[in-house]
Parts: sequence; structure tokens; C-alpha cells
Amino acid sequence: MNEREEYPSLHGISDREAEELCHKLRRRVVQVVSKTGGHLASNLGAVELTVALHRVYDTGRDRLVFDVGHQCYIHKILTGRNGRMETLRTFGGVAGFPKPGESVHDASIAGHASTAVSTALGMAKARTLTEQDYKVVALLGDGSLTGGLAYEGLSMAGESGEPLVVILNDNGMSIDASMGGVAHHLAQQRLKPQYLRGKRLYQKIMGATPPGRVLHDGIHKVKEGVKASLLPGSMFENMGFQYMGPVDGHDVAGLTRLLTYAAAQDHPVLLHVKTVKGKGYPPAERNPDAFHGTGPFRIKDGAPVKEGSGESFSARFGRELCALAEEDPRICALTAAMTGGTGLTDFAARFPDRFFDVGIAEGHAVTMTAGMAKQGLVPVFAVYSTFFQRSYDMLLHDVAIDRLHCVFCVDRAGLVGDDGETHHGLFDLSYLKTVPGMTVYTPASLEELSAMLRQAVYHTEGPVAVRYPRGGENGWSGSSTGQPADVLRQGTDLTMVTLGTMTGPVLAVADRLAEEGISAEVVKLNRPIPLPGETVLASLRKTGRLLAVQECVEMGSPGQDILAAAALAGLTLRGAALCSCGTGFVPHGTVAQLRQLCGLDEDSIFAKAMEVTRGGSEETAGRPAH
Amino acid sequence: MNEREEYPSLHGISDREAEELCHKLRRRVVQVVSKTGGHLASNLGAVELTVALHRVYDTGRDRLVFDVGHQCYIHKILTGRNGRMETLRTFGGVAGFPKPGESVHDASIAGHASTAVSTALGMAKARTLTEQDYKVVALLGDGSLTGGLAYEGLSMAGESGEPLVVILNDNGMSIDASMGGVAHHLAQQRLKPQYLRGKRLYQKIMGATPPGRVLHDGIHKVKEGVKASLLPGSMFENMGFQYMGPVDGHDVAGLTRLLTYAAAQDHPVLLHVKTVKGKGYPPAERNPDAFHGTGPFRIKDGAPVKEGSGESFSARFGRELCALAEEDPRICALTAAMTGGTGLTDFAARFPDRFFDVGIAEGHAVTMTAGMAKQGLVPVFAVYSTFFQRSYDMLLHDVAIDRLHCVFCVDRAGLVGDDGETHHGLFDLSYLKTVPGMTVYTPASLEELSAMLRQAVYHTEGPVAVRYPRGGENGWSGSSTGQPADVLRQGTDLTMVTLGTMTGPVLAVADRLAEEGISAEVVKLNRPIPLPGETVLASLRKTGRLLAVQECVEMGSPGQDILAAAALAGLTLRGAALCSCGTGFVPHGTVAQLRQLCGLDEDSIFAKAMEVTRGGSEETAGRPAH
Repeated sequence: MNEREEYPSLHGISDREAEELCHKLRRRVVQVVSKTGGHLASNLGAVELTVALHRVYDTGRDRLVFDVGHQCYIHKILTGRNGRMETLRTFGGVAGFPKPGESVHDASIAGHASTAVSTALGMAKARTLTEQDYKVVALLGDGSLTGGLAYEGLSMAGESGEPLVVILNDNGMSIDASMGGVAHHLAQQRLKPQYLRGKRLYQKIMGATPPGRVLHDGIHKVKEGVKASLLPGSMFENMGFQYMGPVDGHDVAGLTRLLTYAAAQDHPVLLHVKTVKGKGYPPAERNPDAFHGTGPFRIKDGAPVKEGSGESFSARFGRELCALAEEDPRICALTAAMTGGTGLTDFAARFPDRFFDVGIAEGHAVTMTAGMAKQGLVPVFAVYSTFFQRSYDMLLHDVAIDRLHCVFCVDRAGLVGDDGETHHGLFDLSYLKTVPGMTVYTPASLEELSAMLRQAVYHTEGPVAVRYPRGGENGWSGSSTGQPADVLRQGTDLTMVTLGTMTGPVLAVADRLAEEGISAEVVKLNRPIPLPGETVLASLRKTGRLLAVQECVEMGSPGQDILAAAALAGLTLRGAALCSCGTGFVPHGTVAQLRQLCGLDEDSIFAKAMEVTRGGSEETAGRPAH
Repeated sequence: MNEREEYPSLHGISDREAEELCHKLRRRVVQVVSKTGGHLASNLGAVELTVALHRVYDTGRDRLVFDVGHQCYIHKILTGRNGRMETLRTFGGVAGFPKPGESVHDASIAGHASTAVSTALGMAKARTLTEQDYKVVALLGDGSLTGGLAYEGLSMAGESGEPLVVILNDNGMSIDASMGGVAHHLAQQRLKPQYLRGKRLYQKIMGATPPGRVLHDGIHKVKEGVKASLLPGSMFENMGFQYMGPVDGHDVAGLTRLLTYAAAQDHPVLLHVKTVKGKGYPPAERNPDAFHGTGPFRIKDGAPVKEGSGESFSARFGRELCALAEEDPRICALTAAMTGGTGLTDFAARFPDRFFDVGIAEGHAVTMTAGMAKQGLVPVFAVYSTFFQRSYDMLLHDVAIDRLHCVFCVDRAGLVGDDGETHHGLFDLSYLKTVPGMTVYTPASLEELSAMLRQAVYHTEGPVAVRYPRGGENGWSGSSTGQPADVLRQGTDLTMVTLGTMTGPVLAVADRLAEEGISAEVVKLNRPIPLPGETVLASLRKTGRLLAVQECVEMGSPGQDILAAAALAGLTLRGAALCSCGTGFVPHGTVAQLRQLCGLDEDSIFAKAMEVTRGGSEETAGRPAH
């Protein structure tokens, strides 16, 4: 069978064929990710589980709901996308997360954590109410259990009595002491055998095994595994689940039996599966963290094909926060399971008492900062823009009403590239603007990040955010005056407003406009929230034309605020446009490709600037003079 | 002691004095709430607990963190506010929720559920890191446990080992079958005595009792209570808490002993207290639901002093949804522990299979609607605007990316009155606008609610919300044409834009303006999102002046969108202003008082309209002609 070949249904294959298929799939996923980059370790850990799922379920009809779906590669290979896997996470190619638009086999969007049980319960209820008979199964990692949404979903699903299967893929990676008591809970379950129940369940499973297979050699492994490992799982049982596990997640024959049994039940079942992250590829088994999300690498030894270039905003943030913590004992750092990603590894090692990894619990993190700030600390919560959305109510209710000085470092703001629409950080400016008393800084260079972080910590009252992109600088490494806005270049024909990452391209466009005889004034917002209206309006009074260039959604953006301020001040704009990321749902690709798609590359900005200045577009033509 | 007298510290009082005090406080709170209205049943249930807390803790220094703080009345009476309790929930008076701005004894804002443990953990960490020695105690109701945020906080607090006390005030009211598995969990705990641990803990408590009190008659009750009721509480113990309970929450002497013990521990303690809602006031004990939140009533028999007047939007919604459900089996209703409040009581009774009370879990509710919609149901989630904020990320991630047709009925939108700043629904239009593909209808009359609900269910694609206020109509009972916007009155001097509740007042103001010789055009937005820009701009081209009147925050409001659209279209406004609710943090009072405060009463709107038209204000004067 060619490696690019598509796979037919796995329903009829034997255990031995399934085991062989697993070896082949493991090689295939290493081969693909070595070229494309992506989430390797979690997919290697889920090979047998995914094959077993496809032996038991028909994902074109049954609903397999992933939770943070980056463990979906094997599933994609098995559902008609093997031949396109080399396009994984590239522009126009296969997405790195489940995507219903891509295949009927992808039941739901799954890029944020802890959502699967809620979604699956909704689907299971729909199945029952519409009197259909498909199966529903949710697959979640142990990390997802640190999020309260998972608890809300599990609690209701268990109690509902609705037939559905929840698989807890426990690779032990996300369970560490920093991530809350549920880790201890799972650990304790493994120490409390409850033989009676185990025996009964064992007998049931054996009874459910298709007769012809009883003597197959795979069954012996299951037998022993089941016997030794059926444990009470009291939390899940109290919620109303039939709990099974923990069982060996790399025994494809055993998993198939258990899933066959689970799928046949008329009540909620939770199957606790233990897997090894990176399983079968030694470099990933040895260092699963490095292979959680990886760039392209050499298969032989796992060495990265190219090293990262230059300092990232995250790294600079981590370094600067350590310097601040050194001088001020009130400063604490919080992360929601993203210590490395947010640049806090060094902080965690140097200031362990002042470092808090709360798990995938952004809401809790924000409310906890409120308590800390109220009692005299300076909490700094570093969080990816897209996940910060989970904290919106806590920002309003717990932080803003009491005007508490909590500092939020909003990483991965703007387009993030190959993780796609669930991971871009495009909404933050729009929702942070609505939080009363909120100040937001948008550094465009590493130097500015350092300065603005200090400004946020020491010289800003109330809640404050510093927003910066994934990766490094984008063609500009200057430094702001410390004012809310800077006029970087004087001009008379057009006001170009920029912030953050767009500063380099906007200045380059201003150069090109000058060559065309157009004098563009460049106003850089250092602190878009609250809007430095006077500086911008002064420029607009001079030029009468606006082009706001911003890596965020249009709706509720600083550009819209400027337009509103101009109208309120009675100004007439002879030309105006916004360059932004549309509604905010931008697909995956390189950041450069996506900027081009959104019209945020130099050529597009230049074209838009010409249009605004010369008034030649349909959009601006034929306006009433009024 | 006069009933209005303030109370000194309770540290020195005897058990007998404490019991007498409880009787007195119970009478006092009934007396107050019978006049002011408010949350009666939960406060009656918390009398002994609150007195015990004040015997053990010094809330001026120690931090008592409430969760949904409407059980704070006794606390307020005991901390210098007894003499002002007659002003409870009235404009300028004592707030119905804890408010740090009101007293140093109020540790934090607490109007939304499930926040207390997160806040308390932040405070406890601050205490330890700043090397202080105050105590931290969180008080939460069992209902708050249905929210995932509580689980995130408990999980981390337990694991942290940080000394703090969590009190679970379990009045059994919020625990019912509809509210998820945790209810069963709590119920099971009561059935599993674990005598060994119980005995050890019992011995410890007895050891910790101040010597002179051992023979006090109160202690016998504690002894027996403790002996019989110390249970494993495995979920909490696995999280890292020392679990104590459930204990009798109306035994003030016993509670004082247990709290003294708990406060002295060097690790997290969870004290599970059983209380009776409405305790001691027979009408409230008999019907705690009716006395959860009540209007003024007659003390003798609990009869309401005045009956509600006219049909509310919530009632009409419930009635209309029943009619829809009757004709279409796909329609389901969801609520987050607000069945009665959202008008769904009848629906729940008539369509029990299609009704889902998810507990205080708004995020889960939205993600569950996504699963339901994906599989062919039409889920309708009725939710208060302020609590819907919890669902922001789920709206973006789970619903909007896949353009699922989920219907959200946003109740209590706008000013809600006496519950104050944590409960007004002022942010919804601003954050819903940023959700791609979202449609929002804003009925201004009951008739419109009926029509727009049908429009939302049957004739709108993707996610859709219907936004309506607390209570009934506000001076207008007309009916829209079904277009996104209606011109209710033609005019030439000024465009007044209105939506929802503001329609009556705006039309009245237009009448008054006519008497002044000013011709106002009134444009009513029936569907502000997406903005019906053409209708509004056509009017602005005619009049050149805008006054947008809207019961929501200014930031991100429809009025701002209109300004931005006008600027983008190159219009010049000779006068423009927005009447709205400022930043959104509006205190408590009657809705009429608060509208006046915000400038949303007829007189204020009239004055603003005159200003915009005559250009006499500072805001509009002296603008450059450009």
C-alpha cells in the first residue's frame, strides 16, 4: 500500500492488521510532520486509540468530537486526506485542527480546550430527540480537564444519562503539580483498586466480545490489562458515568474491545486511557515537550531543520519581567499552561514562589489576579490573545469594577499563521476596549515592549494590557516617545495610522507614496486604548484622509474608533479606509500569506493608500458632497 | 439595643449571646427586606454562619470573600451599616452586593457566581508573599459549584496548600437533578461515613476548643453533629482540601468552634455547612423560591405589597417559545439556573425532554447549543445579558466559526435597577457585534418580541440574538415593519436613532422638539447588528445631525458604528452626540433614577437634542469648518 493511498473502512480488519496499520501510520505521521511541522508527540500517542475508534465507529455518521483537536492527524489520514497530508497547516492545505468545512468526518471545530463534552452532549441530545441512532464520542486530553468548561460538560453529561462515550486520553504530560488538584485526583485513582466492581465490569466486557475472537492472542493482553486496572474513578462515577480504566492506550486490540463495549451501553461511559506522548519515535518519546508543537525536523535524530531567527516578543517579555521581578518583590507571573510559549520558563525557575501555572483556566487566572492586586501584589498574567477571550466576564466583573491594577500580557496577538482561525489573536482590541478603565499598549519593537511593560507595571492605573505578536519584529525596531501616539512622519495628503506589527510596512508604504508625489503622515498608536484622539484628529484635520492599518478584526477596531471620533468632531473625510483582518476568521498559512490575504502586505496597503488618496475606487466614488 | 444600633465586635460574646443576636438579626433582616425588597431567603439561611464568621474573623483585616454576595445582608448589618439598611438597594443607599467602595469589610465585588475561591486564593497568596498574617475565607453557595470557574479555583486552591478556608453553604436549593452530576456527588458524600477519619478529626477539633468552654452546653450539639456527619468528601480531599462536614449551619456555637479550628490550620480547609433557606421566617421557609429575590411584602404572612403590573418581556418570551415548540419539534430551550427569571417555567413543564437547565454554566450552555445546532436542532438559550458575558469565547469559537444557527435570547438587557453594577446588561451589543455573522434583534414592544423571535428562529442564518429588557414595555407598543430599521417619523433637522426601550422616550422627545420648531426624524433600529447603514446614512444625508439614544455602554455601541459609517461615507455631521450608559458601570437604584443619571430620561434626551441641533454646547462649538 502506497503511503499516500487513502484508507478504506477499518471495520473489517483483524487485530493483527490493525497493529500493522498502526506501525505504518506512525511512520507516516513522522514523515509528514518532519516536513510540515505541527503537533507530533500527541498524534504519536493517539495512533492506536484513533485506529480503534475507526474500527468501532463510522465517523462519517457517528460523531467523533475532538477536544483541542491537534491530535487529529491520524484521523485525517484515515478519512480521505492521506494524499494531502504534505499540505498540512499550509495555506490552502489540510488544517491542523478538525474542520467540518474540510470533511464530514470532522464533527466540530476544536482549537480551544475543554469544549468536547459540551459539544458531544448537545449532539447526543440531538440524536435522541430526532430519533436517530448514530453514536457520539468525545476525545479529550488530561490537560483539558484543568478547564472548568470540561467540568461543566462532564457534570451535566454524566447526570443526563444520555448514551455517549467520553475518552480521557491521559498522557500524563499535562498533569503536573502546578496544574491543580485534579492531577492528584487522577493519580490517587490509580492507587485504589476496587476489585468487585472491576470483576463485574470485566465479566460484562468478556460477555460483549464477539464469540469468534475469544481466543485471539490480543484478548489476553486486554484481560490482564482490564483486570489490573479497573478502578473506581469516583469523581466520574459520582457524576453519573460508568468509569472504565485506566487502560493501556497502545493496545489497539484491547482498545477496540473496550470501545465496542462502551459504544453499546445505554448510558454515559468514561474510558480512561493511558498513552505515551511521542510513542514509537524515540526523539519525541525522550523529549515530548519539544515535539508537542514542532517545526520541520530531521527524522534520523529529530534535530530541527532550521533554528529560530532573532529574539521573539515572548522571549523579550520573559527577560524583562525577570528584571522587574528582581527589583520589585510584588511582581508575580501567571500563565494558563503556556509557560514556555509565553517566555516564562526562566521566571518560573528563578521565582518559583511568585510563579503560577493555573492550567487551562484563563477565567480563574484573571479572577485570581484580582485577589492578588487587591491585596498589594502586581500580578502579570501572560496569555495568548485567543485564549484570553475566555476571561472577558472576569475582566469586567472581577477586575474592572474595582479598578484593580492587574497587568495582562497579551501574546500571539494578530495573525499567528499555521494554527489558523481558532488561534489568531484578532479580537482582543475590540473586546478590551469595552472594559471600563482598561489601558492597552501595542509595542511595535522589542525595545518598546520593554519600555511599555515598565509603563504598564509602574505608571498605569487600573487594568492594563500589553499586546504583542507571535515571533519577532516586523521591519521596525524603533522606540516610541512614551506618548500615547507618535507622529513618525509628517505629511499633508493622507494620514496613515499604524500600530504594532504594521509599523514597518506602513513606513515602507509611505516611502513608496512619496515617490508617487503623495505626502503621507504616519501616526503610530502606542496606546490605542483609550484612543489618543487629539493627535489623530489633528492629523486628519490637516490631511482630510485616513488609512488605518491594523492587524485585528475591523469590528470594534481602533480604526473604527478614529472614524467615530472624526464624525463626532464634525470632520469631513475626503477618503477613508481600514486595512484589517475582516471579520477575524482567517484560515491557516504563513503569516506573510495571511497578511496578503487580508490586504496587510505592503503592496495591498500601498494600493489602498493610492485609492484613498486619489478617490478612484468604487467605494469612494460618487459620494454626495453634502 | 435599638434595632438601628451598630454592632461592636462579636469576638467577646458568649454562645448564648450569639444565639440571641441571631434571633435579633433574623427579625431585622425580615423587617428591612419587607420594606426594600431584596434577597431574603438566602440571608435568613446564613444568619448563624455570618455571626460565627464575625466571632472568629475580623473582616476589617481578614478577608471574607463572598460568592454571589446577595447573602451579605447580615454581614452588612454587623459592619457599621445597620442604621442605613432601610436604604438597601435604593439609589445612593446600601448596595445589595458586597462593594469594597462601601466598606473596608467588603473584600471584593461579588455579583457573578463561582468567583470566590479564585479571588480568595489570590488574596491568600498575596498574604503569604507579603509576609502578613491575616486570614482568608471564601463563602460560596452550592449553586456556585455548578460553575466551572469554581472548580478551577478549588482545584488550584486545594493543590496549592495555601492556608485558606472555603465554606460551602449548602442550602440544597440549587442542587437538583437538572443541575448536573455534582449534585449527586454531594448527595453521595452524605451516605458514606468514614469513621476513622471522622474520629481523628473530631479529636483534633475537641483539642482545639478553648479549654474553658468544653462543658458549655453548645459543645454537646457540636460533638454529636461532628461525630455523625464527618464524611470523606472525596472530591474535595482529592483536590487537596481538608474536608469537614456536612455540619448544621444553624448551630452558631458549633459553627464558631469549627471555624476557630479551620482558621488555625496551615492548609486549605473546606467546611461543608447545611443551611435551610428562609430559616426562621415561616413564609420564606415554606416557599424559598418566592423569597429568593422578593419585592416588598407584608411581614405577617409574606404577601407581596404590590403585584407586578402588566406582561413582562420574559413572560412573553416564554409564552411565544412554547407556541413555537408546539409547532416545531426541533426547538429546545436552555437556561443557566434561571428558569423562572427567563420565563421558561411553563416550557419546562410542557416540554421536559426539550428543556435543559445547565446550572450556572453559561459557557457550557453555548457550546452545547453548538452541538445541538450542528445536528439539526434549534436550540434557544435564554440568558441574562450580564451573565452571557461568560460565553464570549464559546460564541466565537464553538458557534460562529462554523456559522451554527443557535438562538440567544438576551434577557435583562439594559439597566436592571436595584441589583446594580454587577447585573446591568450593558455590554452585550458591544461584544456581540464582534462575533462574525451574528445578527441581533432589539424588540421595543411585546409584539415585536414575538415577531422577532420567530424571525430569529425561522428566517435568520447563523448565530442570532434577541435582546430585551427586564420588565415590560417603556411607553411604546407599536410593531416594526420587519425591516432592519424603520423610519418612525420623518424630519429634516436632526436624525434621532433609537432602539428597544428608548423608542417611547425618543418619540416623546420628537414631539417636544416639534413644539420648538425642530423637525426630528426618528429612525428605529430593529436589527442593530449588522448595522442597517443605508437607512441611517440616508437620514443623516438629509438632516446632517445625529443623536443616537441607546441603553448600553457607549464603547462599541450602535451609535459609534453609525458615526464610523458616516465618516467612512464622507459625510459631515454638523452636530452629533450619543446618549448611552457611559462606561457601563452604573450603580443601583430604580431604572427611572438610573436613566436620569445616565441622561436617558426624556428631559435629558430633549436637552441633548437641542444642543445637537442648535450647536450651543462646548462639545460642538468652535469646530473647524475644514
